[in-house]
Amino acid sequence: MQLRVPGPTPCPPKVLESMSKQMVNHRGKEFQELIKNITAKLQTIFQTKNDVLILTGAGTGAMEAAIVNFLSPGDKVLSASTGVFGNRFADIAQTFGADVTRLKFDWGKPVDPDEVRRALKADSKIKAVLVTHNETSTGVTSDLAAVSAVVKEFDKLIIVDAISGLSSIDLQVDNWKCDVVISGSQKGWMVPPGLSMVSVSEKAWKAHAEAKMPRYYWDLTKAKTFLAKGQTPWTPGITIFYALGVSLDMILAEGLSNVFARHARIAKMARDGVRSMGLAILPVDDKCASNTVTAVKADGKFDVAKLRQILRDEYKVVIAGGQGDLTDKIFRIGHLGWVEDKDIKEVLDAIKKALPKAAV
Amino acid sequence: MQLRVPGPTPCPPKVLESMSKQMVNHRGKEFQELIKNITAKLQTIFQTKNDVLILTGAGTGAMEAAIVNFLSPGDKVLSASTGVFGNRFADIAQTFGADVTRLKFDWGKPVDPDEVRRALKADSKIKAVLVTHNETSTGVTSDLAAVSAVVKEFDKLIIVDAISGLSSIDLQVDNWKCDVVISGSQKGWMVPPGLSMVSVSEKAWKAHAEAKMPRYYWDLTKAKTFLAKGQTPWTPGITIFYALGVSLDMILAEGLSNVFARHARIAKMARDGVRSMGLAILPVDDKCASNTVTAVKADGKFDVAKLRQILRDEYKVVIAGGQGDLTDKIFRIGHLGWVEDKDIKEVLDAIKKALPKAAV
Repeated sequence: MQLRVPGPTPCPPKVLESMSKQMVNHRGKEFQELIKNITAKLQTIFQTKNDVLILTGAGTGAMEAAIVNFLSPGDKVLSASTGVFGNRFADIAQTFGADVTRLKFDWGKPVDPDEVRRALKADSKIKAVLVTHNETSTGVTSDLAAVSAVVKEFDKLIIVDAISGLSSIDLQVDNWKCDVVISGSQKGWMVPPGLSMVSVSEKAWKAHAEAKMPRYYWDLTKAKTFLAKGQTPWTPGITIFYALGVSLDMILAEGLSNVFARHARIAKMARDGVRSMGLAILPVDDKCASNTVTAVKADGKFDVAKLRQILRDEYKVVIAGGQGDLTDKIFRIGHLGWVEDKDIKEVLDAIKKALPKAAV
Repeated sequence: MQLRVPGPTPCPPKVLESMSKQMVNHRGKEFQELIKNITAKLQTIFQTKNDVLILTGAGTGAMEAAIVNFLSPGDKVLSASTGVFGNRFADIAQTFGADVTRLKFDWGKPVDPDEVRRALKADSKIKAVLVTHNETSTGVTSDLAAVSAVVKEFDKLIIVDAISGLSSIDLQVDNWKCDVVISGSQKGWMVPPGLSMVSVSEKAWKAHAEAKMPRYYWDLTKAKTFLAKGQTPWTPGITIFYALGVSLDMILAEGLSNVFARHARIAKMARDGVRSMGLAILPVDDKCASNTVTAVKADGKFDVAKLRQILRDEYKVVIAGGQGDLTDKIFRIGHLGWVEDKDIKEVLDAIKKALPKAAV
């Protein structure tokens, strides 16, 4: 089966094999070495000297951690949303009592830094800006460097959901002054779902010290305290740590810039491929088109559900449909993590053959 | 290495091997079948017809879920605590704004149902009782049937941390009218850490509908809604689901009563073994001594840290120390999940040899 959804992504055989290793004591020496080793490598890939903490839970758990650790009920927050996951980030903040201003961009468009500036100018009480680097639901990557530069004009906190982009698309946490950045293991990291990561700047730690939203499981003070002794506060997802230990070495051996270039090349191949079939992508231009997921419009030409079923049953290719308002309107090809040119060629060939059978 | 901490527990080879299977789409057919199959088997082992929901996260995450889904800030809650994990349950409730009355039992003693009755009589506004079935920090199992019967005299909600007991020690969720019961994958379930489970009674769902503590990641309405379509709201820990699919079949093939009997026999062997060395267990009597973990007192006779290090370095046996106030005062032998008589015999033999070297 050629699994090409935007996460979980396939894992390399040696990553999968690493999980057959027997359990170890998570308060013992082996785990200490493992977590310290992994944390240092994560910092390299996050391009940061900030603390990077590993949480056992899905990406949405890390989104919750990124909210409840840095905000208090009643805090004004600006959400810059480009799709389902941007809206989710805002929903979480609202659930925990933040006063959220929702700046929504048309699906297919990236965050406009000028609109962020206008919104921050309009309300000086805004404390933090929530932004999605790579919006999985629309296949759009926003210009995070530019957005962050605007947020820093106002000296506000920037909290970034980079779940489906980090490790596949350049994100310079320190250079771009991103305060809180999260990712999830089942994306470009090439390991199974179950772990998420969060980086925390000094400015964010200061906000954390004042933040009053209730937190226990996701409390990053606990995570930081335990990391100092090579542990996690709660029992960690040990097998995913084993897997990450292997995959991080693969990423670093390939070289971060080569990994980014591979994703860019394959994403272009995906876009060129669907266009050659007369289809159009959802992102408004190639500049904002994601290098990890390509969203393709149906435009009433074919039945998305039928196409996906034919691809699955006849060609052993699994792609994703649309989410939320985009259900039945787009399909999405995931091309992140363990992916080579030949994989996307196979997917494109299958789509080309299946399309006529799914025509409406 | 003979890993005998009270979780993570060793996993059988075929459980470990199952995790080498490639990822699947968590919104596709294979995962649907897997989660439905696993959920039904969990209900059998929970001995319940209640909903059983699987969460991606450690046991402490399930503890948080068991609090925030059923209570509102200001709600009066009675905590019946017998150790570190009982205190943690109370701490979580307090963190999220509950008004917690702490009924603490001396470490080594079980919950006294009469004291629970007195506390409930003394304050009619108490809405829920938090109780730990099997307290991992002290090796004490409380008489949950008796405690629950008292809670039900007052028609209150009973919320049970059964993380380290369920599947190893008899817990009849329906017969004992336990409203909310949680467990964690790395305990008697014989799979790696990363998933936790929670059962929810009708009475608990009614409380949930009124409960106002903020929740998003752990929201059980979302978990229930997605389970109806064979999914989870957030990306699940797929590999641990693979593992659980294998281990549940092993547990059911052995037969639940045989699994309980094996744990009881091995626990007795552990107690007899340490007593034959002149050592005493922490629990006040054998009736409340846990069948999954044996806590043994140092009584100033030996250095716990040194004993553990000798066991590890010279005998390849890993046991746990004490937690909280019991640090350096006890050691703990985990004997749950994938454990046979020979394993504990090996552990006891090693302790016998190591003890003189760790004498003080």
